[in-house]
Amino acid sequence: MTKGFPAQEFKTRVAKAQANMAQQGLDAILLTTEPDVRYFTGYLTRFWESPCRPWFLVIPSTGDPIAVIPSIGAVLMARTWITDIRTWRAPDLDDDGVSLLADTLRHIGQRIVTPSGLQSYLRMPLTDFTRLNAALPQPIGADGGIVQALRLVKSDAEIKKIRTACQIANRAFARVPEIAQAGVPLERVYRDFQRLCLDEGADWVPYLAGAAAPGGYGDVISPADNRPLAAGDVLMLDTGLVHDGYFCDFDRNFAVGDVSAEVDAAHGALIEATHAAFFAARPGASAADLFHVMDKIVTGGAGGSDAGRYGHGLGMNLTEWPSLIPTDTTVLTSGMVLSLEPGIEIASGMALVHEENIVIRDTGAEWLSQPYGHVMTRLNT
Amino acid sequence: MTKGFPAQEFKTRVAKAQANMAQQGLDAILLTTEPDVRYFTGYLTRFWESPCRPWFLVIPSTGDPIAVIPSIGAVLMARTWITDIRTWRAPDLDDDGVSLLADTLRHIGQRIVTPSGLQSYLRMPLTDFTRLNAALPQPIGADGGIVQALRLVKSDAEIKKIRTACQIANRAFARVPEIAQAGVPLERVYRDFQRLCLDEGADWVPYLAGAAAPGGYGDVISPADNRPLAAGDVLMLDTGLVHDGYFCDFDRNFAVGDVSAEVDAAHGALIEATHAAFFAARPGASAADLFHVMDKIVTGGAGGSDAGRYGHGLGMNLTEWPSLIPTDTTVLTSGMVLSLEPGIEIASGMALVHEENIVIRDTGAEWLSQPYGHVMTRLNT
Repeated sequence: MTKGFPAQEFKTRVAKAQANMAQQGLDAILLTTEPDVRYFTGYLTRFWESPCRPWFLVIPSTGDPIAVIPSIGAVLMARTWITDIRTWRAPDLDDDGVSLLADTLRHIGQRIVTPSGLQSYLRMPLTDFTRLNAALPQPIGADGGIVQALRLVKSDAEIKKIRTACQIANRAFARVPEIAQAGVPLERVYRDFQRLCLDEGADWVPYLAGAAAPGGYGDVISPADNRPLAAGDVLMLDTGLVHDGYFCDFDRNFAVGDVSAEVDAAHGALIEATHAAFFAARPGASAADLFHVMDKIVTGGAGGSDAGRYGHGLGMNLTEWPSLIPTDTTVLTSGMVLSLEPGIEIASGMALVHEENIVIRDTGAEWLSQPYGHVMTRLNT
Repeated sequence: MTKGFPAQEFKTRVAKAQANMAQQGLDAILLTTEPDVRYFTGYLTRFWESPCRPWFLVIPSTGDPIAVIPSIGAVLMARTWITDIRTWRAPDLDDDGVSLLADTLRHIGQRIVTPSGLQSYLRMPLTDFTRLNAALPQPIGADGGIVQALRLVKSDAEIKKIRTACQIANRAFARVPEIAQAGVPLERVYRDFQRLCLDEGADWVPYLAGAAAPGGYGDVISPADNRPLAAGDVLMLDTGLVHDGYFCDFDRNFAVGDVSAEVDAAHGALIEATHAAFFAARPGASAADLFHVMDKIVTGGAGGSDAGRYGHGLGMNLTEWPSLIPTDTTVLTSGMVLSLEPGIEIASGMALVHEENIVIRDTGAEWLSQPYGHVMTRLNT
């Protein structure tokens, strides 16, 4: 399995960013987060787990990106296609890369922007950002979504990696009956499910959430408790595992022995909703269209639930734009990767959620996850 | 194993923050990152892996904290000791919690601050921060390190969790000979080591880095490649696994069969350096003191390497302040948890790094990791 991308993949991404920058008269984009830096460089390390060091990548309006990074990352960055690598010995309590970055930006130009809109953040200390702005002829502005728009549409090489991540999760989900049955504490199930993901080929498992309860569950983001699974429970496991820096994000519900007819019916409606969205998902449809297609089935068109959405983009992050909500008018185009994630309320505070991953192609959608059947897999009691 | 903390633990933390706020005449602290929010609430979820939703916690100068969060988190937040929970249905493309947060802050007072110094960042979109500031009587200021100073000194209950995380990693490292030997690709070793960590009780494994090469390695933050281990390699694995929201962070070096006398000697020097720092680590010594104690042994006092430091704090993050560097004059006090992480260069670009975790007590340091011996564990060829 080839890891990473050829340099041309990154050069294409930079060229697209620069075309947009030229239209807007921008001199450079400043990037500070893991996926944004990796998107243009291929710089892949779990070292970002440490919040102690800032990392900077500058995309100038012409020429190759410039990395302004702690010296501990120089060797790894030099293995990417990036050649202009400027380092400081971090952490520096007096000047943690700010002067070096300011010098770099000043030589490039005045109109510097950084991702600033929804679902973005600036990964550097606020006081250092203030110092940086003070050292520049103009304060850094908002990028107007340039980077977000680029990352929204995946290349074939990216889709291949997401598909592989999904296939790994497919295989792990298929093995859940090996690890989960009545009497096994949910904590143990979580731990063993992560082991299955690794066993099936995940590089790591950044995300696992779920729930187990009879008649539905109250929330879908809790860590595991030590309550043993019991006959009549619905067990839900939702994983975002990583293959070569790309996520899958989907869940499966399992029935511990027999569950109520209401639960079975609710699950069937969720499967029906994801299939309806799958068939509606094609270039020209909008994110909101997919919401409404699913909402008609799961609530009769009531407008969704407090979970807030019926799916979202994914890729280098577990969740990306767009959001499948009534107000997101993003038009789907070939190359977008989405989760379809409808929820249904069975009783007050008791819900089921189901999730699949798809990619939009010219002629419609393709499944990335192996779509689950109407009847939940049964676990032993 | 009891998870979480009693409510009194959080109330004590809030009271300490409020005492500091009173001294500085502050009305509220705004928190936006996972560890900061969790520190005062106990709100533990891997859902922060999704960058799509901001989360806010407000610590007023008197009274209990107020959570201003997406509705998807309301059920889980209500299980903590927090009772004032204000939600909006996120993502909201027009107003993603900004008005709700601004209303909350305006009713509390004018002097609002947020963590802004080194090793902090603001986890919300920059444009939303600008809008928030515009909706307040005064812009949000820097917290002057209040939260950092509190988190720097761990309670006994926190230390117990970190110790458990370290013990899990101890057991996983002891089993490395089961999974690593000549011929096994490094990728496979990484995957299997994470499985060992889970098997031994880790909740999840957010961090694993390492290297394998003869005569030392060039960097310590790379992901695994598929090169098989070979006789004469030094294999280094560095893990930050999590138990109940708290990290360990230490590494181990292993010799695949026989390694050169230089490598064995370098490893011995690293062990000697960590022990020297262990004995120097007591209340009243500084972070810089520990640096110099180790640097004398590994470089003869040359002032360290490009990795930048010989250790750091840890706890709710993989790495926290202080930094063991010459310029960090932080005075050690009982309750600080540190990694001791000296590196030594064997040849140009070829280094070894060793790491242990300790806690500072009134009478000196205690090991949290089981200190490794001078002679590396041998793996089969």
